[in-house]
Amino acid sequence: MEIKVVKDILGANEQIAQKNRQLFDSHHVFVVNVMSSPGAGKTSLILETIKRLKGKTRVGVVEGDISSSLDAEAIGKEGVPVVQINTGGECHLDANMTSSALPSVPLKDIELLLIENVGNLVCPAEFTLGENIRVLISSTPEGDDKPFKYPLMFHQADAVLINKVDLLPYLKFDVDAFSKTIRGINQKVKVFPISCTTGEGIDQWVSWLFDQMKKG
Amino acid sequence: MEIKVVKDILGANEQIAQKNRQLFDSHHVFVVNVMSSPGAGKTSLILETIKRLKGKTRVGVVEGDISSSLDAEAIGKEGVPVVQINTGGECHLDANMTSSALPSVPLKDIELLLIENVGNLVCPAEFTLGENIRVLISSTPEGDDKPFKYPLMFHQADAVLINKVDLLPYLKFDVDAFSKTIRGINQKVKVFPISCTTGEGIDQWVSWLFDQMKKG
Repeated sequence: MEIKVVKDILGANEQIAQKNRQLFDSHHVFVVNVMSSPGAGKTSLILETIKRLKGKTRVGVVEGDISSSLDAEAIGKEGVPVVQINTGGECHLDANMTSSALPSVPLKDIELLLIENVGNLVCPAEFTLGENIRVLISSTPEGDDKPFKYPLMFHQADAVLINKVDLLPYLKFDVDAFSKTIRGINQKVKVFPISCTTGEGIDQWVSWLFDQMKKG
Repeated sequence: MEIKVVKDILGANEQIAQKNRQLFDSHHVFVVNVMSSPGAGKTSLILETIKRLKGKTRVGVVEGDISSSLDAEAIGKEGVPVVQINTGGECHLDANMTSSALPSVPLKDIELLLIENVGNLVCPAEFTLGENIRVLISSTPEGDDKPFKYPLMFHQADAVLINKVDLLPYLKFDVDAFSKTIRGINQKVKVFPISCTTGEGIDQWVSWLFDQMKKG
């Protein structure tokens, strides 16, 4: 009985996600679902990405949080349109919440929409939003064992950004072993070691993102 | 309709949690529900706690993970009884999963049971397991804005351990502001700055835990 309800919800989610995707496609907007644990660096990555795309691509942002609008305020200062979704306790964004936010997103005026999901390495993996690609940020202080413990999230990512590499000298974290583990779960995934603090690797990530947008 | 189902599940959870609690009480076992984001240091804290309680208190551990038994293996090496729960995708432990594990836990032989929840700052807060106290580990690299974004978890904690304070020189994290924010949400909470790497603050935490056990 319980399982049946969950299946119905997921089926409904997929249908709404497809409608979102049609709307994005009709406006030629490329959509990125940004996911991670709490505090891995989603907002910092979005800020760094916006800065590097200024004058090249018109960006919009949807901010998903259980509560507060701290991140949306930080992003609004960069002069890009930003819409806050407060999930009111829900541990992930879903296609319907995303759909509800879209009338407030100026889709005609943007080419790239970055959606920051709720900080959670489990539940967001189960709900597509209508995005073109899924990006997972996994930060070095979380440890290099995360792919073993949260395999679905790593399995479904198009790119994994290993954030906070500036902290590597102070941590036990084997970047090569971590990358190998991820590729064992997900052969197609792109892996970028980055630091939103020093800027390391951000240009490579943004360049790859730009290529994905061109491909559609 | 959907909300009703969730309410029924939570009601059922509470009933099973009370039965778990009766079982723990009848064996004079004090139970701690250890929660945090992925990679904040739950297993490291449990290992450090076990080491300091050797010869003082007989400890058992229940390990909750979506998949893998890496943490249980690490804890088993300390010579304490450990039982692994693999949730098979579920993003939190609940009272029923805990109950299913208890026949494998030697309750007669232990005085303290540490339950490591799934790494998730959202969902575990909604499901009591029958524990005496809830401990939340919030690590410095996650940032000092977490109480604003995940208020329920901070609201329900009996103690918040600020882990990885050895990384403070390399991060923007204001321990005083963070502590003040937590106390704004939860006046009774105890806050311990700790490092499982250097050992800082662990004795204070263990001493407090020991006091809670005596109080029952």
